[in-house]
Amino acid sequence: MVKEYPDVLATTKTGRGLYGPRQIMDITNKTYLFYAERVIRKMMEICLPYKNVIGIQLDNETKAYGTAGRNVQAGFVKYLKEKFHGSCEEMNRAFGLDYWSNRVNSWEDFPDVRGTINGSLGAEFQRYQRKLVAEFLSWQRSIVDEYRRPDQFVTHNTDFSWRGYSYGLNGETDVYENAKAFTVTGTDIYHPSQKHLTGMEIAFGGDVTRSTKSDNYYVLETEAQGFAQWLPYRGQLRLQAYSHLASGADMVEYWHWHSLHNAAETYWKGVLSHDFKENDTYRACCQVGAEWEEVGSHLIHLKKHNKVAILVSNASLTAMDWFPIGERGETHYNDILMKCYSALYRRNHECDILFPQNAAEKMKDYSLVVIPALYAASEELLAAIDAYVRAGGHVVATFKTGFADENVKVWHDSAPHLLDKTFGVSYSHFTYPEDITLSSKDPDLDGKEVQTFMELLHPDGARTIAVYQNSPFGEAAAITRNTCGAGWAIYLGCSLPDAALETFLDETAREAGDVPQVSAAFPVIVRKGTNQLGKELAYLLNYSGNGQEVFWNGKEMEDVFTKQKILSGNRVTIGPWDLRILEGL
Amino acid sequence: MVKEYPDVLATTKTGRGLYGPRQIMDITNKTYLFYAERVIRKMMEICLPYKNVIGIQLDNETKAYGTAGRNVQAGFVKYLKEKFHGSCEEMNRAFGLDYWSNRVNSWEDFPDVRGTINGSLGAEFQRYQRKLVAEFLSWQRSIVDEYRRPDQFVTHNTDFSWRGYSYGLNGETDVYENAKAFTVTGTDIYHPSQKHLTGMEIAFGGDVTRSTKSDNYYVLETEAQGFAQWLPYRGQLRLQAYSHLASGADMVEYWHWHSLHNAAETYWKGVLSHDFKENDTYRACCQVGAEWEEVGSHLIHLKKHNKVAILVSNASLTAMDWFPIGERGETHYNDILMKCYSALYRRNHECDILFPQNAAEKMKDYSLVVIPALYAASEELLAAIDAYVRAGGHVVATFKTGFADENVKVWHDSAPHLLDKTFGVSYSHFTYPEDITLSSKDPDLDGKEVQTFMELLHPDGARTIAVYQNSPFGEAAAITRNTCGAGWAIYLGCSLPDAALETFLDETAREAGDVPQVSAAFPVIVRKGTNQLGKELAYLLNYSGNGQEVFWNGKEMEDVFTKQKILSGNRVTIGPWDLRILEGL
Amino acid sequence: MVKEYPDVLATTKTGRGLYGPRQIMDITNKTYLFYAERVIRKMMEICLPYKNVIGIQLDNETKAYGTAGRNVQAGFVKYLKEKFHGSCEEMNRAFGLDYWSNRVNSWEDFPDVRGTINGSLGAEFQRYQRKLVAEFLSWQRSIVDEYRRPDQFVTHNTDFSWRGYSYGLNGETDVYENAKAFTVTGTDIYHPSQKHLTGMEIAFGGDVTRSTKSDNYYVLETEAQGFAQWLPYRGQLRLQAYSHLASGADMVEYWHWHSLHNAAETYWKGVLSHDFKENDTYRACCQVGAEWEEVGSHLIHLKKHNKVAILVSNASLTAMDWFPIGERGETHYNDILMKCYSALYRRNHECDILFPQNAAEKMKDYSLVVIPALYAASEELLAAIDAYVRAGGHVVATFKTGFADENVKVWHDSAPHLLDKTFGVSYSHFTYPEDITLSSKDPDLDGKEVQTFMELLHPDGARTIAVYQNSPFGEAAAITRNTCGAGWAIYLGCSLPDAALETFLDETAREAGDVPQVSAAFPVIVRKGTNQLGKELAYLLNYSGNGQEVFWNGKEMEDVFTKQKILSGNRVTIGPWDLRILEGL
Repeated sequence: MVKEYPDVLATTKTGRGLYGPRQIMDITNKTYLFYAERVIRKMMEICLPYKNVIGIQLDNETKAYGTAGRNVQAGFVKYLKEKFHGSCEEMNRAFGLDYWSNRVNSWEDFPDVRGTINGSLGAEFQRYQRKLVAEFLSWQRSIVDEYRRPDQFVTHNTDFSWRGYSYGLNGETDVYENAKAFTVTGTDIYHPSQKHLTGMEIAFGGDVTRSTKSDNYYVLETEAQGFAQWLPYRGQLRLQAYSHLASGADMVEYWHWHSLHNAAETYWKGVLSHDFKENDTYRACCQVGAEWEEVGSHLIHLKKHNKVAILVSNASLTAMDWFPIGERGETHYNDILMKCYSALYRRNHECDILFPQNAAEKMKDYSLVVIPALYAASEELLAAIDAYVRAGGHVVATFKTGFADENVKVWHDSAPHLLDKTFGVSYSHFTYPEDITLSSKDPDLDGKEVQTFMELLHPDGARTIAVYQNSPFGEAAAITRNTCGAGWAIYLGCSLPDAALETFLDETAREAGDVPQVSAAFPVIVRKGTNQLGKELAYLLNYSGNGQEVFWNGKEMEDVFTKQKILSGNRVTIGPWDLRILEGL
Repeated sequence: MVKEYPDVLATTKTGRGLYGPRQIMDITNKTYLFYAERVIRKMMEICLPYKNVIGIQLDNETKAYGTAGRNVQAGFVKYLKEKFHGSCEEMNRAFGLDYWSNRVNSWEDFPDVRGTINGSLGAEFQRYQRKLVAEFLSWQRSIVDEYRRPDQFVTHNTDFSWRGYSYGLNGETDVYENAKAFTVTGTDIYHPSQKHLTGMEIAFGGDVTRSTKSDNYYVLETEAQGFAQWLPYRGQLRLQAYSHLASGADMVEYWHWHSLHNAAETYWKGVLSHDFKENDTYRACCQVGAEWEEVGSHLIHLKKHNKVAILVSNASLTAMDWFPIGERGETHYNDILMKCYSALYRRNHECDILFPQNAAEKMKDYSLVVIPALYAASEELLAAIDAYVRAGGHVVATFKTGFADENVKVWHDSAPHLLDKTFGVSYSHFTYPEDITLSSKDPDLDGKEVQTFMELLHPDGARTIAVYQNSPFGEAAAITRNTCGAGWAIYLGCSLPDAALETFLDETAREAGDVPQVSAAFPVIVRKGTNQLGKELAYLLNYSGNGQEVFWNGKEMEDVFTKQKILSGNRVTIGPWDLRILEGL
Repeated sequence: MVKEYPDVLATTKTGRGLYGPRQIMDITNKTYLFYAERVIRKMMEICLPYKNVIGIQLDNETKAYGTAGRNVQAGFVKYLKEKFHGSCEEMNRAFGLDYWSNRVNSWEDFPDVRGTINGSLGAEFQRYQRKLVAEFLSWQRSIVDEYRRPDQFVTHNTDFSWRGYSYGLNGETDVYENAKAFTVTGTDIYHPSQKHLTGMEIAFGGDVTRSTKSDNYYVLETEAQGFAQWLPYRGQLRLQAYSHLASGADMVEYWHWHSLHNAAETYWKGVLSHDFKENDTYRACCQVGAEWEEVGSHLIHLKKHNKVAILVSNASLTAMDWFPIGERGETHYNDILMKCYSALYRRNHECDILFPQNAAEKMKDYSLVVIPALYAASEELLAAIDAYVRAGGHVVATFKTGFADENVKVWHDSAPHLLDKTFGVSYSHFTYPEDITLSSKDPDLDGKEVQTFMELLHPDGARTIAVYQNSPFGEAAAITRNTCGAGWAIYLGCSLPDAALETFLDETAREAGDVPQVSAAFPVIVRKGTNQLGKELAYLLNYSGNGQEVFWNGKEMEDVFTKQKILSGNRVTIGPWDLRILEGL
């Protein structure tokens, strides 16, 4: 195909690639789509009639792969024309293009967007690329639907950002929009293992994926042996499998069955090694399979009733990639998001994830909404947050929230824009802290080092929870809390050390009403919900090589495996890299 | 313009850029110049008649931006033809092109200079690019002169090398040559702030800029809030403003008035933040303005009478970029220059800057000339140094001085070339020191670690000040001093630790006759001169967060702000990040 | 030439270069070869008749320089067609091209190999490039042969991999194949000096080069002053010169006579500095020359009778560049090879080098064959190793041996393939160790940290020498030893700390029969052989700045310089960076 139609290869910022690597096609190219459709139709014709084909995975970790050729840019200009009602002037204003001669005077003069240094225009193109991905998946779904049986699901593995493993939201694709093309949301989750296995990536990945449709989901890929550094310790593969279920997964698939003997993924090892022989990994999978055969009906279709939500934002992620924090731009959106998530996770406050698309409607269902660095957001979204608080909601937002609009234009008035009243605070100055500590009446905050970023807050109505100690910039607040309407809103003007943030968010969540049933913290993680039998289910997961014990404070439960009864006040022991599952009676 | 005439974009080593980034045009392209001239003329017509337009800044931190397209290279070949009297043979000899088949046998075979690996040819092209910059500015001046009133100045902001802030000489442009196009030299100075504010970059930038015309200058850009890591502590913005005046600035402008809401400089923050509201930075500016309204006539037009000069060299800088020091090439010309400058600065030896173009004429005005790594220099310049010493001058030169000619050809005879008699020393071997220390009768040098680079000096007439202790290479001198004619010349064969160099240069400068009036050293910096009233002016600047006190040893002075009299022997206190200005009676 | 025929420049992965850098031609381009032949013939006509022209060096550190243009790829496809008997299908199977759509369905559809991400195909192309180099040298030899006298040698400087100095095997060229074009093998050896001079690179380079023809060789380039960090300490240049002879060199040439005054190698300093004056380096060379004039006849043509051999593999090196070890891919073939070599070197077990081409024939000549990471090897080679052991040979192989075939396809059965019986061991799992130590009855191994890589070995017949202590993966062996036929075979399933490996290999080599005559270890290195007078010769080389003494355990010898007799049991002293040479009587 490439020999005959070279245009099927994506033209990206670095030009057009050479044939060889996977996924370097232009997902909008009509020739590519023509052949792709033929392949899809043939596969559907042949495969779907089989009874044991239970569903369809549309594609694989789909992105736009940087596609930015002439055709894509033409489409982008049409998209902009529509967005700005045909007016270049309106676009110039929205994106601030007058600066450094980036003004566009007529649509036909629109320059190659790959050269832009304007973060507003650049981020808009990335949003357009995410839109192309969602459309591409939706197109695939429409073909598949012509063939599939009602009992055959449609899913897809939207993946996460990557730091050698799944980490944070993926800015190249919109997990929420994509999900509209699936009957069941799916995902790929790869995570550190061995002594670095914490379950955090499994939980985050699950919470995000579950929240796209507020329903169960499939783990379409996760590691068996995986990379050499991931080879599981005894017990870990089983613990990982249950960790997925504990977040609401209804399926766990391994990438992949056996290890490959050539090509790029030779060392992305499967369940079996290259020798095709039974091994410890395989035996661990067998054990999990056998257990699920036995108790799976108690585990599948777990429903969550979380009281805490985190509001995430692809727009903010992209915008902060254009304007990262730090002298070397080392801090990005996902650093802030994952720091907040991790703090809640380690103190056993389970979360749902909210998206800009559904936050206004869903916030009211939660006792606490945590908002990490909502840097770029529409006034509609900001107003929804304000309304949620006034109606009795509780919010913790971090620095950088409400700084720019959805077009990455910084607001011209008080920061945080529109929320200054909600939080009772504003600021004009910020810096990167060096030898700055907090001063607070809260002993968990007092004396703690300020990290990464600090805003010099001026409370206007809010109560100051912490100030910067002996600030050489003049006195300023660091953390504030405001009563607003029937609710309250906490503003974190700076980044805290992990342990301090953990304690602070734990106390805040408890005050907002999320009081865990079990007095446990990492490495013992508790994940809960209601199973399809309508019974409460609680996973006690031990992410450590040492045995752990906790005291059960909830109502009477039964161990799913041993059928042992657990009464309130009972001690529950959990072996190294092991777990317990308790079911309500 | 780019759509119609793509050639207006510079073709650089990496090809031609995409429209978007600023300053990627070919400054020699005739189409570009045609349109540029129209814009300039229109601006002059409209703006210059206004009474409150007090002058013109020609351009912005102008460079050649790597322009190296066909037209530029054609011009370069013509330039070479002229330089070498039409003889390829002469050029081949001067640049050593025989090596590795780089010989050019006829001008029409001249290869694409972007591919050269010959440092002599490469450095010559960079010199040619600097020449293009000076011509481009001069061309702008010629247009502007058709319109401006006699009272309207012409200036421009030639900037410095950049290491996250202004650092050392800029190899891409020739500050001395550029200045011929201005009536008043201007510059941009950005510097570390907060706990890293030392005033050193302000002083160096000022000294260089002032020395281009031996006159006052304008600071056309410096930071207000600037980058997040530069947000000034209380007092710093005011201290910085006075620091500029103390070097002879007659104007301080901030980049920029308010912070931008879009585009690449969104976080290069101005006096005002994005919210347009009064803030601490703005209030600090107001205070400075109010003070200058009151005492400015005592401060403006400060004239210097320095006894120490530093000889800098763009040719050496460029040559050492081709041949840097260190296993990973980590040490460049500016490292050596700034190490020397910093040592003098911290001990309050104020400096003028000499350039190869004016050194021969001006050296005689100084008691001491410091010469850092004058790696590439003409015999004329070396002879002028020799003559200066013989006539009673005092010189400290560092390693690498007199190593190559102005075409970056290493001399074939004793190093340092032509100066071996002046310094009474020569050497054949050099290395990067590892666990080498000095041995010296001078206790400030004895036992000190040798850093970065060492030449194994063989004194021939000079007195040895320090040798390498237990040298595994055989005995060799490290620092020598030679009496030569009526003067003396010190040769530093190696790099010393900062503190040792400070002490050594302090003692040397004092011996040469530069004895500071105030016994102070960093963090108290004394900068002085004569104001337009003909009175002596001394700034006592405290670059620290602690109050300082010094004893005034000069004649009777008066505090410009408090009118308090200061007699010799009086204690003068200076608050944290604060200053005193004393005026002679 | 480039102006007229741009195709003479190699088209590489990054496209075609600009004229300027050396050695960027396409060594297969017919226009280039046409002109090259004219130059070669003219040089031969003019130079060879001179009596003092004693030989010809064909080329300089020749490589394929990444040449991968259309013509080269066309040749590669022809080569593949032949290798796979015209069958794409066979190639697809051998290289595993089905994965990620890399399947080739017809030869005319063969994609640009520069884009491949398939390690098997990529490594094959690199093998083809090495073949081009050998052919290019052979072509030069054929021309030279038309002119040269029988007494004129033909040589060439095949170089080593480069880490700032010569380090390990060079994957871009095949030292064994190249050598067929020479009458005497030659090489370039550059090495750390000053306090980092160990002699190891000299010994390794010599052992490899000598082994290509099992004969003496020429050092065509080594450092005099070299880079600044290499300036020799007193004594080192002489020690280095003798070190080359001690490995079997018959010539030592310096790069180069005097230091260059322009161009890229200005700071690759020669015997003379830029000043052309006598200096310490020159004087050291003179001393060496004078000594060789006197005692050279006792030193030249040294023949080795080593009992230990190391089997190296270019195929494994290339394959492991595609699949390196470590989370950041930081460990490559040469790291493992040089770790083994260094351990033997420091304990004075001299080695010959075996290549896949001659191993089957030569292994039987050795008491011990050490096999580092023979990752990619044909079944023929693996079978030869097995046969050698069964016939009474002794082998130590490391992890990764026998993992893939010669086409870099991982074997489908037990690892190590075909050798699982020889070593009596197999494994299915491996990982990167973190806080893993050994447990062993051998006190030199017990408690030692496992580094870099570990395979979880399951002995099947072998005796376990060490296991992983408290392995969280379940019990597994780390080092095993198997008696197999008349020999034994040790398998190192993990990387050990240097000191532990040294002790382990020392004991192993002694047991296999290589018992050094002198009880010495680094920094005293003993290198020995038989000189052309048929007498035993022993070099005692002191690579340290401290005097050393050792006890001579061999038969009676005579000091070549002092004629002093050395009897068994005598103490022999060696000065700092000095040496002794003892000759049998």
